[in-house]
Amino acid sequence: MQILDGRKAAQAIRDKLKIDTAQRATEGKKIPHLAAILVGDNGASLTYVNAKVKACQEVGFRSTLIRFEENISEVKLLHKVTELNNDPDVDGILVQLPLPRQIRGEEVINCIEASKDVDGFHPVNIGKLVHGSATFLPATPYGIILLLEHYKVETAGKHAVIIGRSRIVGRPLSILLSNNNNPGNCTVTVCHSHTHDIKEFCRHADIIVAALGVPEFVTADMVKEGSVVIDVGITREADLTKKTGFTLRGDVDFDAVAPKCSWITPVPGGVGPMTIAALLKNTFESCRVKN
Amino acid sequence: MQILDGRKAAQAIRDKLKIDTAQRATEGKKIPHLAAILVGDNGASLTYVNAKVKACQEVGFRSTLIRFEENISEVKLLHKVTELNNDPDVDGILVQLPLPRQIRGEEVINCIEASKDVDGFHPVNIGKLVHGSATFLPATPYGIILLLEHYKVETAGKHAVIIGRSRIVGRPLSILLSNNNNPGNCTVTVCHSHTHDIKEFCRHADIIVAALGVPEFVTADMVKEGSVVIDVGITREADLTKKTGFTLRGDVDFDAVAPKCSWITPVPGGVGPMTIAALLKNTFESCRVKN
Repeated sequence: MQILDGRKAAQAIRDKLKIDTAQRATEGKKIPHLAAILVGDNGASLTYVNAKVKACQEVGFRSTLIRFEENISEVKLLHKVTELNNDPDVDGILVQLPLPRQIRGEEVINCIEASKDVDGFHPVNIGKLVHGSATFLPATPYGIILLLEHYKVETAGKHAVIIGRSRIVGRPLSILLSNNNNPGNCTVTVCHSHTHDIKEFCRHADIIVAALGVPEFVTADMVKEGSVVIDVGITREADLTKKTGFTLRGDVDFDAVAPKCSWITPVPGGVGPMTIAALLKNTFESCRVKN
Repeated sequence: MQILDGRKAAQAIRDKLKIDTAQRATEGKKIPHLAAILVGDNGASLTYVNAKVKACQEVGFRSTLIRFEENISEVKLLHKVTELNNDPDVDGILVQLPLPRQIRGEEVINCIEASKDVDGFHPVNIGKLVHGSATFLPATPYGIILLLEHYKVETAGKHAVIIGRSRIVGRPLSILLSNNNNPGNCTVTVCHSHTHDIKEFCRHADIIVAALGVPEFVTADMVKEGSVVIDVGITREADLTKKTGFTLRGDVDFDAVAPKCSWITPVPGGVGPMTIAALLKNTFESCRVKN
């Protein structure tokens, strides 16, 4: 069994971005600039958005964190997004999800200029993903593709079973893994809450991606020998023995499953760091094509 | 075994559209208008586009067929699309595919105003399909959904195996059948040229959709008892005994497979007429929301 080490793979991507960004600076070219919007003070969201801002700083990007109160109106939020759309210094815009109830997430995502949508959630970018044409890929699926690429995991002709059909992970990843690319060319099955026997599908899988948000859903009896297991779950569970007060739990029973795998991602340190690395790559690319 | 009769189901949709269109006329409202562009004189393309224009006339829509020589430049074609985009009388624009080599199909499709893209190929419309939000669905997958709906075929929790990952059929249909809708909520597997054992996947399927364009690819030994089989294939094969000079052959060995099925589509008279019905529905809807 080998670990798909997201921290290491993400570090390699960040090292490369740092060099490329310094090179741009030397040449007097524009430095990438990510603007992140956070509404409210949800602990997990704050952690994620802070990690993204910190990652920008590490590789030499500029970053701006814009925070709003929980009760901000949709109009005011859309106004800010439009302002960032029109700001030529901003290369990438991300709005940390989830948003409070009074705000329609879809309106906000659709309002982001597609060419600055470094989270890859805008319909135009999703549509281009389906077509297989160049675009900003959604950060988590893109991060998983980069991780498979980093470790040269063979995917062509493999049967990938994805548990979860969310807009931001399961669905776009199913398309990416199935497209005629490398990584890609998998036979992909998408399972979800209406699937009758998820265990049976998993038992036949060469690659399992667990993206449903149920801690330790994937157990050893669901995994065949030699399979590749990608764990997208990051559920916070109260744990007073930790300084943070919580433990992160994945969707895979790691200790029991790992011995059966050829490759497996840990939680934390697997998909999480890759999501941020993918966001940085999108932001760099947005800056590069425009400047 | 029961036939999923696309001619009958399409007729029911056209009858309804005819009434609704007459109703609009009575109320002095705008009548739907489809503009179709055909480049060159490929026999199959001409047949399809003529069938679409004729279907418009039958339900009382206006239609315009614009034909160009095979050697038209991309610029000239894009100019015509832009003209149709700007014409408030045109509700739906379709460009019959395939296009000749000198024209980049993607440029042309992307140029069509998304709100007039009744073929549902524009990235924005594909992106909205992935998000599950209202949009123009691509005509063939939408036609298949309408056919399943017409015959009240149960799909939730079923395992659908789709053979073919094309942009216009297999891929969007895989998303529609997997989304949280009715028809929908299938566990969907997409097979393609890199899949090792398509037969084995099919044998476990409750629903098989054959969309690869290989005549009689799906044989009886690939189909389990009671399954639903949808045949999207329409390969023309020379046949001098026919007035047209050809026979249409589907991707399914109908005679051998049909006895094992609960439902099956014939070729012709299955998915084909539904594709046109879906196009009409999109065109009507485009007119309705704008006027």
